[in-house]
Amino acid sequence: MSDLKSLILEYGQRARQAARWLARLGTEQKNAALRSMADQMVARAEKILEANRADLEKAGGEGLSGALLERLALNPKRVRAMADGVRQVALLEDPVGKVIAEWTRPNGLRISKVRVPIGVIGIIYESRPNVTSDAAVLCTKTGNATILRGGSESIHSNLAIAEALQAGAAEAGLPADSVLLIPSTDREAVKHMAEMDKYIDLIVPRGGPALIETVMTYARMPVIKHYHGVCITYVDNEADLEMAVEVVLNAKTQRPGVCNALETVLVHRGIADAFFAKAAGRLEEKKVEVRGDETVRELLARTRYPYLRAVTEEDWTREYLDYIMAAKVVESAAEAVEHIERYGSHHSDCILTANEATAEEFLKAVDSATVYWNASTRFTDGAEFGFGAEIGISTDKLHARGPMALEELTTYKYLIRGTGQIKG
Amino acid sequence: MSDLKSLILEYGQRARQAARWLARLGTEQKNAALRSMADQMVARAEKILEANRADLEKAGGEGLSGALLERLALNPKRVRAMADGVRQVALLEDPVGKVIAEWTRPNGLRISKVRVPIGVIGIIYESRPNVTSDAAVLCTKTGNATILRGGSESIHSNLAIAEALQAGAAEAGLPADSVLLIPSTDREAVKHMAEMDKYIDLIVPRGGPALIETVMTYARMPVIKHYHGVCITYVDNEADLEMAVEVVLNAKTQRPGVCNALETVLVHRGIADAFFAKAAGRLEEKKVEVRGDETVRELLARTRYPYLRAVTEEDWTREYLDYIMAAKVVESAAEAVEHIERYGSHHSDCILTANEATAEEFLKAVDSATVYWNASTRFTDGAEFGFGAEIGISTDKLHARGPMALEELTTYKYLIRGTGQIKG
Repeated sequence: MSDLKSLILEYGQRARQAARWLARLGTEQKNAALRSMADQMVARAEKILEANRADLEKAGGEGLSGALLERLALNPKRVRAMADGVRQVALLEDPVGKVIAEWTRPNGLRISKVRVPIGVIGIIYESRPNVTSDAAVLCTKTGNATILRGGSESIHSNLAIAEALQAGAAEAGLPADSVLLIPSTDREAVKHMAEMDKYIDLIVPRGGPALIETVMTYARMPVIKHYHGVCITYVDNEADLEMAVEVVLNAKTQRPGVCNALETVLVHRGIADAFFAKAAGRLEEKKVEVRGDETVRELLARTRYPYLRAVTEEDWTREYLDYIMAAKVVESAAEAVEHIERYGSHHSDCILTANEATAEEFLKAVDSATVYWNASTRFTDGAEFGFGAEIGISTDKLHARGPMALEELTTYKYLIRGTGQIKG
Repeated sequence: MSDLKSLILEYGQRARQAARWLARLGTEQKNAALRSMADQMVARAEKILEANRADLEKAGGEGLSGALLERLALNPKRVRAMADGVRQVALLEDPVGKVIAEWTRPNGLRISKVRVPIGVIGIIYESRPNVTSDAAVLCTKTGNATILRGGSESIHSNLAIAEALQAGAAEAGLPADSVLLIPSTDREAVKHMAEMDKYIDLIVPRGGPALIETVMTYARMPVIKHYHGVCITYVDNEADLEMAVEVVLNAKTQRPGVCNALETVLVHRGIADAFFAKAAGRLEEKKVEVRGDETVRELLARTRYPYLRAVTEEDWTREYLDYIMAAKVVESAAEAVEHIERYGSHHSDCILTANEATAEEFLKAVDSATVYWNASTRFTDGAEFGFGAEIGISTDKLHARGPMALEELTTYKYLIRGTGQIKG
């Protein structure tokens, strides 16, 4: 066995032991630990920033892009924000121990279905160091042990943050192994984690296609992917035109770099002329490149739209994360549904219409985590749902779909209380 | 691509299309289809029995064991029972479309979390042909398409049953591809199914270690295993002696060949002498082989117990499915919990005690799908839980844990109804 593999196995065993301890803690003990973690993060801010400078220097030397450096960079304000985030989680309701359902059988057996922690959760992520703290504290709050594996660019920052979390946990009497961070940046580490189903109960990968593919290929335990969003909005011929333009603009341009931003707009032929005439100026302000089918190009050409390109088959499945939008004219809501089912990523899709029957049919037919009627897809987010905090947006279908918050970091068990019942 | 792989891909595509259709059906249409399926099964009973005779002849020729032949054999009564089972499922409540939660955000967005079908479910099972019908109709009831892959011993029976189900579905206007059965007995078929995450949303393997291992190794989609039960019962020193003997006897001997039967008993030293003295005669009646530690052997030897053996380390993790029981004397409930966490399979475990505090601590500490206080573990079963029907007992932790019934064959999506909300 390689040294790396034995290290990861050892981490798994340690996390399993810690998880058993964490599962028995009461809410107040867990909250106290979260507060200690926040305190330690503030106390160690200088150490964290120093580690971050080492990461930034290395990244600069390797010629990483400005956007990536921006995601990587910490400053005193960002460290304080991370610590505040931890304190916020301490204030949220604890789902563990809640009775989901309870009933008595004719033979007198009392069955209770209660929320319990999942156990050990592996989080695999890429550049942003704040995920180290965000993910770990949500797992701690729900009584789970965490094994983190961040991107190589942020390894020093991640280690410094994890040390602060561990110090806080230890101070509050929690096992030091409640939060573990894999210190190696070797890509094999992801494979070893994915194969370790004995010690990891769930893996949450947040990242690009290569990372997701590795996890899916090797994982022997449940995986909840936080993958891409090819979010599609359909403008029906019965849409309120003003609203349609506002919502499409918002979904595309309010923050294009996130998974719930719009990537494709489908417009009913009956409203296409009016829609593009009205939208053109607004899209142009934001320099949105429109990749249109023939009709869209014809309509936008009339307005002398400057950022116009022909759409290709590949464009329909692409997540641009940029000021680029694919656009198509369709003949009906049914055709829009067909397009969404064929090309979409089942993340967040929307219909804009004043016709309730058309809307309800769309809501029923589209099989996506979140389906909207007359609102921007940008609301697919734990905070916007009122969940207080989220570990991310699941693009998977089982256990957690869409915003994944505290409740989704728990599972359940059945408790059966009897008086000596035997099966006849 | 091999012929088998392309066949399975084609099945996947057909099932995906059928699933989209099924998801839109109302409860009454699905129930009508189930009734047609039952009718077709009765109408084709002779064909099914003929196919079953072919399987039995082949199995007899290959020298399969009596128990296996018994599981494989159908007769007119068993076919009627299968058809009746299908009609029962038609009477159950349909979880699809149920609103799990609904709330309005301060910005006016109305969020509904509603139950929807999972999509395409792959069921991989071994010898018993009735699983073909039991599994398929539960999936149909919940609006899922099914791809079945049964054991090679029952291939003719399975095909005949699947044909009856397909005829019933077609008669009721459902797509013929709602229920598909892989006609090949090639073991590679399981691998191809497990890799086809584009078209299968969930795989449910029911079977032995080799089958489970293949699925876990190759699966790229969620898997809910129906695997083994190493069920452990702990007799506390404060147990009611009479009740303890009755419950242990029942859990071990009422039907030893099932996953919720007891495999190991742990007895507190303070009651061990009395327990084994009282249990010995009853265990002897059933010819239960006891594999005991030193103390158990000493105690049972006093009663001249005839079926006694020394327990080995391997015995603690074995699922005997037979009149065999591992037994150990422990010093405390805490030691029992440690044993269960270390050796158990987290299926169904039990404490027998009159002390409520001890019981509640045990219920909290044991991380199993079902944890009992003063009742036989044999009640871990969809029918006993009041679920009406079950597709099996999940030994996994996420999405479905323990008895897996109609609700666990669904997932959810969020519907958001707005009035033009955009993100600021």
